[in-house]
Amino acid sequence: MMRDLSCHPELLSLNTATVRKQAPLDAIIEACVARGIGLIDPWRDQVQAVGLEKIARQIRDAGVKLSGYCRGGFFTAIDAVGLAAALDDNRRAIDEAKTLGSPCLVLVVGALPGALTGAPAYRDIGLARAQVRDGIAASLDYARSVGMPLAIEPLHPMQAADRACVNTLEQALDLCDALDPGRTGALGVALDAYHVWWDPKLAGQIARAGADRLLAYHVCDWLVPTRDLLNDRGMMGDGVIELKKLRAMVEAAGYRGPVEVELFSDAWWSKPMADVLDTCIERFKSVA
Amino acid sequence: MMRDLSCHPELLSLNTATVRKQAPLDAIIEACVARGIGLIDPWRDQVQAVGLEKIARQIRDAGVKLSGYCRGGFFTAIDAVGLAAALDDNRRAIDEAKTLGSPCLVLVVGALPGALTGAPAYRDIGLARAQVRDGIAASLDYARSVGMPLAIEPLHPMQAADRACVNTLEQALDLCDALDPGRTGALGVALDAYHVWWDPKLAGQIARAGADRLLAYHVCDWLVPTRDLLNDRGMMGDGVIELKKLRAMVEAAGYRGPVEVELFSDAWWSKPMADVLDTCIERFKSVA
Repeated sequence: MMRDLSCHPELLSLNTATVRKQAPLDAIIEACVARGIGLIDPWRDQVQAVGLEKIARQIRDAGVKLSGYCRGGFFTAIDAVGLAAALDDNRRAIDEAKTLGSPCLVLVVGALPGALTGAPAYRDIGLARAQVRDGIAASLDYARSVGMPLAIEPLHPMQAADRACVNTLEQALDLCDALDPGRTGALGVALDAYHVWWDPKLAGQIARAGADRLLAYHVCDWLVPTRDLLNDRGMMGDGVIELKKLRAMVEAAGYRGPVEVELFSDAWWSKPMADVLDTCIERFKSVA
Repeated sequence: MMRDLSCHPELLSLNTATVRKQAPLDAIIEACVARGIGLIDPWRDQVQAVGLEKIARQIRDAGVKLSGYCRGGFFTAIDAVGLAAALDDNRRAIDEAKTLGSPCLVLVVGALPGALTGAPAYRDIGLARAQVRDGIAASLDYARSVGMPLAIEPLHPMQAADRACVNTLEQALDLCDALDPGRTGALGVALDAYHVWWDPKLAGQIARAGADRLLAYHVCDWLVPTRDLLNDRGMMGDGVIELKKLRAMVEAAGYRGPVEVELFSDAWWSKPMADVLDTCIERFKSVA
């Protein structure tokens, strides 16, 4: 039986990148609390801008929980020094996630090193994928030791060059099976409707994932036309993704966690935070 | 043994969309012939603007051959009238391809009807995929009867909503196997490096395709950053695709046909046609 989100406002989580241009994280959390949004997924840079301890205290005092923490990853590099630095950074991200009580650390795994600034240091996506596998394996050892699940987020293939070379749910689950064959709960996926809605193998792979591997579920919408590869995501209901059908698959696979709203959108970043949050709540109830 | 393109200028084909903004098709063909480019893949609208008979005569007189004809497809529609109109249009495209002596008709299969103009008539990508399957099946009957192979082109997932809901080589080959289980040569794929380079399953699927299914091979490059979902393709060598590695896979699978250069690029459309063609030739030899 699919959950009726209009009766479960407690399942709404706000990924705080959705209003990152409007306010600092402490003000975002205040605005969430004022609207009854009790779950957030904050980004590391937003936490750091206010201060980790201060945010940890604020959410503890307000009773706010995390649905995830964004993000670890970016495991690729041109040399051993860079690879080691990435592992160090992921250990710090795991520690921060632990401090904030997150149920998982979301991994945007990285792609061709340097591509994000327009200067790829190499072009071998096979090498990038091998580095990602090794980086997740190494981080998983530490994450297990502190009890922090890692959630690999497959990113849309249009971001394969610069942000993540894990681009389908099948590929992410193959990684999970290779590195955590026992399905221990230490490794899974963050499934974002925006990144995966197009995939002809999606239904079968969601069933394959099951509740063990589905650590997070994100929503927004795919606009037609889409004017930018990164920052033109749509509000749920404004695009072409069949969100209810997708969530039905995710819940049929056993997922019972939050539904996290995550938009990167120049259009929505230009609106008042209150309007964006109110719209997120309304569309969460009616469309997601 | 991989072919050395610097010694095989006769393998270069120009997809004429690459200079569609600079000149009409007859002038493009003249410019190709003047540079020793003896293969082209013209678009239907470019042919129609000059006239089918005139183009047919021009290429016959000049000894120019086609590597493909762009395009059939767009099989989806909101009702039976629309579906039938799409089949009629594909029959005409097949006839034109025959008149021009093309070795295949390239299919951009279509996606959510109306999405291309920002007004999707429905959002069910599963329905679109079923309509595409039926449309190819119906067109294949006619195409077989006149001896015109159909080449399904998997398009990048970022074009799944508006242009083609066949988005991976695996999906295209599944369609081929379902509709032409005997691998008769009547149905195959047009493999475009730009659309498929990111795919973690690419190597295995190219091997699966084999010479029977690989009816065309297109190249350009993926730029970082990519500023537009449609018209920001790069010239070979200016992006991150490992073109020689990809061609090695394609040739190892048995492909011995032309290497077709196809760019949609506001940047290259703004340059003089002579410069674009000369650069295509140079990069074809050195990078593709």
